[in-house]
Amino acid sequence: MKKRYVLASGSPRRKELLQKIVSEYEVIPAEGEENSISTDPAEMVEELSFKKASEIFHKIFTNDTDRPVVIGADTVVSYNRRVLGKPRDEEDAKAMLRIISGGTHTVLSGVTVFYADENGKEQHVTFHEETFVDVADMTEKEIDSYVLTKEPMDKAGAYGIQGQFAIFVSGIRGDYYNVVGLPVARLYKEMKNLNLL
Amino acid sequence: MKKRYVLASGSPRRKELLQKIVSEYEVIPAEGEENSISTDPAEMVEELSFKKASEIFHKIFTNDTDRPVVIGADTVVSYNRRVLGKPRDEEDAKAMLRIISGGTHTVLSGVTVFYADENGKEQHVTFHEETFVDVADMTEKEIDSYVLTKEPMDKAGAYGIQGQFAIFVSGIRGDYYNVVGLPVARLYKEMKNLNLL
Repeated sequence: MKKRYVLASGSPRRKELLQKIVSEYEVIPAEGEENSISTDPAEMVEELSFKKASEIFHKIFTNDTDRPVVIGADTVVSYNRRVLGKPRDEEDAKAMLRIISGGTHTVLSGVTVFYADENGKEQHVTFHEETFVDVADMTEKEIDSYVLTKEPMDKAGAYGIQGQFAIFVSGIRGDYYNVVGLPVARLYKEMKNLNLL
Repeated sequence: MKKRYVLASGSPRRKELLQKIVSEYEVIPAEGEENSISTDPAEMVEELSFKKASEIFHKIFTNDTDRPVVIGADTVVSYNRRVLGKPRDEEDAKAMLRIISGGTHTVLSGVTVFYADENGKEQHVTFHEETFVDVADMTEKEIDSYVLTKEPMDKAGAYGIQGQFAIFVSGIRGDYYNVVGLPVARLYKEMKNLNLL
């Protein structure tokens, strides 16, 4: 049976990145509450990615349709084990940028691939990737100007490495695309190993 | 006097990246031969970036015009101190990809900023940035498919990290944009320190 790839996330950045792995797929964003019982950032993103992928897999899977391969992902920024999500407003964005300015933080993405095997039995794999990001010292003026671009507002940690924030990122260690929102090299490898490509 | 920013490179990737630092600039690609007397990759990219920036600065600078700020850049891939430039043809691209598959290589970008100071006297700063790139093991089939995308043909080391090659890059250490062709964080910092922004 033909594979039916589904991205369980409405993020335009993840949508663009998944194109590097599969050429055709649908986008069906999960609607469940994004609450985690875990306080460990790595466990948290794994758990949330599992919830998203599981929700959509069970919504669309029937034994007589194409075999669905559902990808769920969740990304957080962690600084000294404190989790920074999406900013509530501009002041919150400025506060987050002051925290990450002049230091190194961690970006964690959890990913779950939910699929049906040859026998129609459901299976899944969950993993996370970690990337360390070094941010230059930012002046208050630079923080203000950056927040005025509106770029921080829909992003964990209040920045987009792929946008205007690039000038403040002196270096990273790990997968760049993990910081954008989807660890494409690891996801490709896992899907290849599971014969899902 | 108003500053006039000029990029001395015709690379569409550098053109896009410079937008993260300055909003308005011209593109005047240097035409000189890209030959270096150096065999050290870091010295080579610094020397070539200097030649490009110097050529364009001296072509456009007159004492009664706007003050030009000319940016020249050059990027190479280095593996075990062997320099990989742009591939000559598809076979050469495949050979380069076999070399970097399953290992770590270095991407070096040299940058020169050529400008006139308050007294109209010419000045310049030259630097290089180094980024380490880990590439997954690629099968011959993966190498063949990637070369068929034509993406390798105009790129040092026969790959574009921003394109389909992303699925093979398991991690980097350093500035991602340095691998794309322009180390934007370092260039922003240098231009800010020189009061050129």
